[in-house]
Amino acid sequence: MAKQERAARTRELLVHAAAEAFAREGFAPASLTTISKRAGVSNGALHFHFESKSTLARAVEEEAAEVIRQIARSDGRRSGALQRLVDATYYLMSRLDQDVVVRAGFRLSNCAALRDRSADLRGQWQHWIEQVLQEAEREGELAAGVPAADAATVVAAAMVGFEMLGAKDRDWISTGRLLPFWELMLPRLAAPGVLERVKPAGTPFSAQPPA
Amino acid sequence: MAKQERAARTRELLVHAAAEAFAREGFAPASLTTISKRAGVSNGALHFHFESKSTLARAVEEEAAEVIRQIARSDGRRSGALQRLVDATYYLMSRLDQDVVVRAGFRLSNCAALRDRSADLRGQWQHWIEQVLQEAEREGELAAGVPAADAATVVAAAMVGFEMLGAKDRDWISTGRLLPFWELMLPRLAAPGVLERVKPAGTPFSAQPPA
Repeated sequence: MAKQERAARTRELLVHAAAEAFAREGFAPASLTTISKRAGVSNGALHFHFESKSTLARAVEEEAAEVIRQIARSDGRRSGALQRLVDATYYLMSRLDQDVVVRAGFRLSNCAALRDRSADLRGQWQHWIEQVLQEAEREGELAAGVPAADAATVVAAAMVGFEMLGAKDRDWISTGRLLPFWELMLPRLAAPGVLERVKPAGTPFSAQPPA
Repeated sequence: MAKQERAARTRELLVHAAAEAFAREGFAPASLTTISKRAGVSNGALHFHFESKSTLARAVEEEAAEVIRQIARSDGRRSGALQRLVDATYYLMSRLDQDVVVRAGFRLSNCAALRDRSADLRGQWQHWIEQVLQEAEREGELAAGVPAADAATVVAAAMVGFEMLGAKDRDWISTGRLLPFWELMLPRLAAPGVLERVKPAGTPFSAQPPA
């Protein structure tokens, strides 16, 4: 059992060290030797757990995808669809800021070299944005003349922008950018009665992993 | 003179072949041998013109930056600031769609490995967006309670998103995405009297390089 725990711990150290290298340098320039050194394990141990750099990248994406699963599990009984969308953006940006595995997972979405990936994070995130805005539309939360699909285009594109720009300059994934974004967007997106109750700064809920 | 022309032509072929490789694979994986083969020149000729892959990348960025200079030269007497912003986005997206050098130049903005670059295209584009929205604010084109800086955050982030997503799926840099974007944004950004005259589909001007 202790041996299994050690193996799990080594695997975790490798995924973390790989994420650091991918987030900093990108997939192609990252070297397996640097990764095993950073993880404090031998090259042999690395190859015991991961047969190639691509396998390691897929493990990073897989682990980072947990953030999208958390968002997808967010509880509709606690607030309406628009508020859940706002909250999810704060949650994702704070995870991008704090967790190098999440940052690397998203960055790997740019990587043309990585084929047959198990998790397309950016695609999953966009899909969730579309779904929640369709729900908002069905629930009458969207303003008249605002199609859910168009709202999703704007929000999804801006979120990719925040995430990309945030890789170089953390300010872009901070409340300092998200709050003005939602203050600007919500009066256009939300139906009049709904606007009053959607909080552009997010609800306390947004600070924790959605239940 | 014929020799000089041949040299200029070879240089141009190399920049184009490099842009194709950088746009498709990214900077790090692109090989100089593939680039010289694609350009139909010897490795020796490549090294005569460009001392390294970084020098070649800077030449691509430099050439792509012309699109931002064209936008910056757009003529304020022909239309107001908001219309010029709308037109510039159509112009840039069509250039990204049609010109691999522009596409590669923007893609190189993601590349952490490239230091001391001469042209940060994405940064220049964002700077221009900020400037033109400040001009719109001064001219009274922005709606009450919409600060130019916040409008710039939303537009700049969304444009990075379109550009990034467009690298994999051209639909994101098409009119099919830009038109709903502006139809959604303009009623929020433009002052009432201004909204009537700003065309979300752009003006004919947007189809040509700004004068």
